[in-house]
Amino acid sequence: MTYERENIQKITGYTPGEQPDSLTVIKLNTNENPYPPSEAVMRTLRNMKAEVLRRYPPPNAQEFCGVAAQMHGVKPENIIATNGGDELLRLAMTTFVDPLQSIGYAEPSYSLYPVLAEINNSPVVRIPLNENWSLPQDFAEQLNKEDVKLAFIVNPHAPSGYLTDVATLARMAETFKGVLLIDEAYVDFVDPDLHYNSMQLLERYDNVLILRSLSKGYSLAGLRYGYGIGNKSIIEPMLTKTKDSYNVDAISQHLALAALNDRETAAKTWRAVRTERQRLINHLKEIGFVCTDSQANFLLATVPDNLRGGAKFIYESLKRNDIFVRYFDAGRLRGSLRISIGKPDENDVLLKALRKLV
Amino acid sequence: MTYERENIQKITGYTPGEQPDSLTVIKLNTNENPYPPSEAVMRTLRNMKAEVLRRYPPPNAQEFCGVAAQMHGVKPENIIATNGGDELLRLAMTTFVDPLQSIGYAEPSYSLYPVLAEINNSPVVRIPLNENWSLPQDFAEQLNKEDVKLAFIVNPHAPSGYLTDVATLARMAETFKGVLLIDEAYVDFVDPDLHYNSMQLLERYDNVLILRSLSKGYSLAGLRYGYGIGNKSIIEPMLTKTKDSYNVDAISQHLALAALNDRETAAKTWRAVRTERQRLINHLKEIGFVCTDSQANFLLATVPDNLRGGAKFIYESLKRNDIFVRYFDAGRLRGSLRISIGKPDENDVLLKALRKLV
Repeated sequence: MTYERENIQKITGYTPGEQPDSLTVIKLNTNENPYPPSEAVMRTLRNMKAEVLRRYPPPNAQEFCGVAAQMHGVKPENIIATNGGDELLRLAMTTFVDPLQSIGYAEPSYSLYPVLAEINNSPVVRIPLNENWSLPQDFAEQLNKEDVKLAFIVNPHAPSGYLTDVATLARMAETFKGVLLIDEAYVDFVDPDLHYNSMQLLERYDNVLILRSLSKGYSLAGLRYGYGIGNKSIIEPMLTKTKDSYNVDAISQHLALAALNDRETAAKTWRAVRTERQRLINHLKEIGFVCTDSQANFLLATVPDNLRGGAKFIYESLKRNDIFVRYFDAGRLRGSLRISIGKPDENDVLLKALRKLV
Repeated sequence: MTYERENIQKITGYTPGEQPDSLTVIKLNTNENPYPPSEAVMRTLRNMKAEVLRRYPPPNAQEFCGVAAQMHGVKPENIIATNGGDELLRLAMTTFVDPLQSIGYAEPSYSLYPVLAEINNSPVVRIPLNENWSLPQDFAEQLNKEDVKLAFIVNPHAPSGYLTDVATLARMAETFKGVLLIDEAYVDFVDPDLHYNSMQLLERYDNVLILRSLSKGYSLAGLRYGYGIGNKSIIEPMLTKTKDSYNVDAISQHLALAALNDRETAAKTWRAVRTERQRLINHLKEIGFVCTDSQANFLLATVPDNLRGGAKFIYESLKRNDIFVRYFDAGRLRGSLRISIGKPDENDVLLKALRKLV
């Protein structure tokens, strides 16, 4: 017999991107940073004391929150450290959305959002993005009409890389009546010339919750470390009531701190990724793909119409050559591939393989 | 304004044990193992490759599950690795208990259980333990009468250290109609002469879920690593549907594996703790405390009746001397102190301080 709740019985769960065991494949399918984490992080790891492992960790990662707060120009009480950004998504659901109340997002988006909604037994309001991947003008009004309690905007958007500007986000926060979670998992790769900074929203809107992650920007996907930034009224209930008592382990807290403190090294990887992103876009366009302007560490390449087998064929052919990219078998993404930006030599191998195929 | 769900607004959350910053205090209040983790674990930590941090971790900790399965004589599909045992408790709630459905446990017990219930908006059925801390004969019947969907038995019991035998657990599992979670966070410290082994329950009962933790037995409280063992029908929905996609980070997976593979070193600490446990009990009885037989790495000492100020006074006096023990300001525990078993010299300092006070 089954002991599962009825709504859990019905769901299928989230499928993570393929993680091939081999370390020799060219892995451009799960948006990892192609460069290693900073040596300061590795040094901190090697110097970790046994006593730090033996004892329970600080339950609220106070030291990390202090440094993160300073970096973002907010107070420590505005920060919650989480076991990956995914934990923050779940906590927002648990804290702000009753079962049977709705969540919403613009489609397509991160496929974990609807899974979290199903677990919470919450209906999902899906609002199609505009043709150019921007948010519909009346996004917030549509959410309000459906009485949505929590909405997600991933910015830069995945899988297109489209960046919504802060003025637009402000308009959404102003109008939307629920909690607006801005998922900035990829924000470190945004061109600094665009002067994107969503922190100013926190001063004016108490319903904004910003998600940050060390997975991509700091090359620490293996560490599971993210954090939320928001007004105290948003952060405190997650910190003191709904998160697991010791949600972030001691090693992660030390390494995350070392990573933020050596932000300069990470910033070098962001610049390198941006340079390669532009080069890759230029070459892909040359080959015949349609590429939107991406502000993330991946890009969305739409396969030329005249290509036999389309995106799925290319995805499978690349895989046979040990090159992994991401193919989504759904909706308007079916004609496209999401390609994480690799190191120059990895991107060269990809381009060579694509030229052969097209 | 607040965006919290109504039931979240009402709750106060879990209060972790005091974690003094100083490394010189004698800390006998949160049941850490007094001995450091194995050198094999520390070596694994120092040799961790940057590439392991850069990439996403294996989502289901397959390698760890394989080794744990072998150790317990079950299959890998019977194991789920979790971010501390606490995550398993939460997952069991999320997976098996609808909001407004009840959970149950014997009181007193781990104070996190009712907090998880409050988050899930689930009523709590509390059944008082017998005078000697054993489960009431009709525990399962009482749970069934209240239509409880998930029940917790912490075994050895906290804070008394009382061990319920497997035959009794089997009777409970047989009768109880919901999921029976046996929280074995302290089981490594059970006297091997008692031949306690709950794994045999899994063959007969599909409603049993056993919790294990590396926090105490393997001196890795800072790591946040636990796991659940149960029938596939119990494990699979948590593994594939309700847990966060990458719930256990890459470093933890490697270190947990190293810890299990060097179980012999951990077992030495278990023996040392058992020896000290008996010595401490003998001395405490001599001083005038009432101590029950404990099978955990802590003991419950009831303060002599004639002592002015009682347990609270002793707790506070010890704290002023930089000795931390646990005092519970609730119910039948008010007259007692829970004392984690320290190293011989730590226990000596404690005994000396107590002799002075009594």
